[in-house]
Amino acid sequence: MFGSVFTDMTNQREPLDRFFSIIPAGGIGSRLWPLSRASAPKFLHDLTGSGQTLLQDTWDRLTPFGGRDRILVVTGKVHKSAVLEQIEDLSTDNLVLELSPKDSTAAIALAAAILMKREPDVIIGSFAADHVITEDAKFQAVVREAVEVAATGKIVTIGIEPTEASVGFGYIKQGEKLGLAAAPNARDVAKFVEKPNIAKARKYVESGDYLWNAGMFIAQASVLLAELAKSEPELHASIMELAEVWDTDERKAAIERIWPKLKKVAIDYSVAEPAAAAGLVAVVPANFSWHDVGDFAAIAELQSQGRKGNLAVLGNAKVLADSSSGILVSDTDRLIALIGVEDIIVVDTPDALLVTTKEHAQRVKSLVDALKATGHSDVL
Amino acid sequence: MFGSVFTDMTNQREPLDRFFSIIPAGGIGSRLWPLSRASAPKFLHDLTGSGQTLLQDTWDRLTPFGGRDRILVVTGKVHKSAVLEQIEDLSTDNLVLELSPKDSTAAIALAAAILMKREPDVIIGSFAADHVITEDAKFQAVVREAVEVAATGKIVTIGIEPTEASVGFGYIKQGEKLGLAAAPNARDVAKFVEKPNIAKARKYVESGDYLWNAGMFIAQASVLLAELAKSEPELHASIMELAEVWDTDERKAAIERIWPKLKKVAIDYSVAEPAAAAGLVAVVPANFSWHDVGDFAAIAELQSQGRKGNLAVLGNAKVLADSSSGILVSDTDRLIALIGVEDIIVVDTPDALLVTTKEHAQRVKSLVDALKATGHSDVL
Repeated sequence: MFGSVFTDMTNQREPLDRFFSIIPAGGIGSRLWPLSRASAPKFLHDLTGSGQTLLQDTWDRLTPFGGRDRILVVTGKVHKSAVLEQIEDLSTDNLVLELSPKDSTAAIALAAAILMKREPDVIIGSFAADHVITEDAKFQAVVREAVEVAATGKIVTIGIEPTEASVGFGYIKQGEKLGLAAAPNARDVAKFVEKPNIAKARKYVESGDYLWNAGMFIAQASVLLAELAKSEPELHASIMELAEVWDTDERKAAIERIWPKLKKVAIDYSVAEPAAAAGLVAVVPANFSWHDVGDFAAIAELQSQGRKGNLAVLGNAKVLADSSSGILVSDTDRLIALIGVEDIIVVDTPDALLVTTKEHAQRVKSLVDALKATGHSDVL
Repeated sequence: MFGSVFTDMTNQREPLDRFFSIIPAGGIGSRLWPLSRASAPKFLHDLTGSGQTLLQDTWDRLTPFGGRDRILVVTGKVHKSAVLEQIEDLSTDNLVLELSPKDSTAAIALAAAILMKREPDVIIGSFAADHVITEDAKFQAVVREAVEVAATGKIVTIGIEPTEASVGFGYIKQGEKLGLAAAPNARDVAKFVEKPNIAKARKYVESGDYLWNAGMFIAQASVLLAELAKSEPELHASIMELAEVWDTDERKAAIERIWPKLKKVAIDYSVAEPAAAAGLVAVVPANFSWHDVGDFAAIAELQSQGRKGNLAVLGNAKVLADSSSGILVSDTDRLIALIGVEDIIVVDTPDALLVTTKEHAQRVKSLVDALKATGHSDVL
């Protein structure tokens, strides 16, 4: 009897009214050390000089879809207070706290399952907390199309039209247009491909058939979870068990029992790729400016304010720069003087200082690995 | 009657027994900002990684000449406690405190006049507190020759045999050998020349006739002061007036009355050059290793300990360096990570950070000037 009631509701609501955003706020951003830390990851920082953190920007980008009550944030338990401080409008009902990092499948599937328990016909969209998108209106138009496609039963991703042959992103090979009136740009996904080498990246971009995989997924929660049940039945069962008791007194005990055993797997592998192979994935191509701010070189490109000549300055440092270019990120109020250094990256924090160049920005990750290995976890 | 007693003493004492070292400890060392500050100038720092400051090294180099009681330090009033802390053996009788910086003539002439009042036949030697000399035995042998020459009535300087065509030092053109048995290497000084351009520097070095002017002077105090009386009679009179009451209760009042009006002039101009023109200056050539540590590039050369590959490390920073070279000076205990930066200079202090390259090391001075001009004197 309940079933038929829900079925009626499903048929009554418009796709956009069923939409609920999920913001997985995880990932340390090792390449942004020492600014980004385990204790203060990337999404908690203002990396664009906008005056807002990436998490706040992401939140504001999603509130047009039904307001503050239609966004759920998934983050680590340790970030609870920072997240609630940054997002005053977030109710704790819509804050899912992870006991420990378990990669993207656990985070997104649990959020989807909790929401589905609350609203069986929910269409969820997952948008990372640490990406930079500057054209919100374009973004929202693309999401609206994606929601329409999701209502047809597809798992929908957003593919960014590449502006260069980047080797830093995975690619999506697009197929035929779906021909949906409500989503005229939507296409089938032929396949997902991993981060390519530069030669392949160039071929992809020249062909015009490939889009950057921005890691955004829009789907009916039921569809997404059904795909997970096929590829990772054990993980799916655990997630459903957790979601079943989430809004009850049993939540805490269930988390403590179930969470530590959850399999760590990226949603790309657990859901997106198998579903694409089964012809279940669609893509909405998008040409809004998007960046995952993978390293400090990216910050230099994004930074429009606070420039001193060819030097991008992030933070409140007093800066004296002479014949210098690059990026300076400051988390202190020290005076910083640069003389004759080009394409430099200086990141100044209370307990750690990084000096490198744009060319070597990607190597910061291996440095963080070295710090772990040498017992410097106090600064990670 | 007193006069004749003193004259007898003068004739009786050996030159080396009459010798008294003066250490003018002044000069901020702007090119070493932000390590060297008005409040903590160059000479108070360990710039060689020896474990001792430049002042302590200078002191130790001079104690073989009669011990701790035969060295007088002239420094700024503000450095009193730092100097006494670093040189525990220094008695306050042999500490002359300047009310404000008045350049080298006031410092050295006042010390000489005070010492002459105490010992009319004193031979003084002036040795800056912020030079690096690593071969103390060679240094002492040269000073012994210089003292012998000074006893003959000359003003004696020490000329360093150049190892490269440096444009950072003034030069001394040497004349004929004096032919003194007790100072076989001593020569007349033909003239002093200012810091040359690179072409001139090369000619000087190739000729073999020129030595680096290391700014050291050895002379009978009476001879030095007589020369000053000729070139700067007013300054001389003021200095003598101060020295006359130095060891009395009137010292404080005299300083306050006389000091602010003292003319600022380098001893090179007030004494050395006029005396050289009058044929009164001799030089003892020296081949000990000497450096005035003018900038951070010089520190990189001097630094033998604490190297991390091609990176010289001064201070107690935890350093993680990858494919980097240059010098890292740390006055904090922060972790410093360098990736792929070459010939870099990083100077990390609690309230200011400098990043530049060896090539631009000399430009630090203009930065300090810019800081002054922009009201950042709190970090100078």
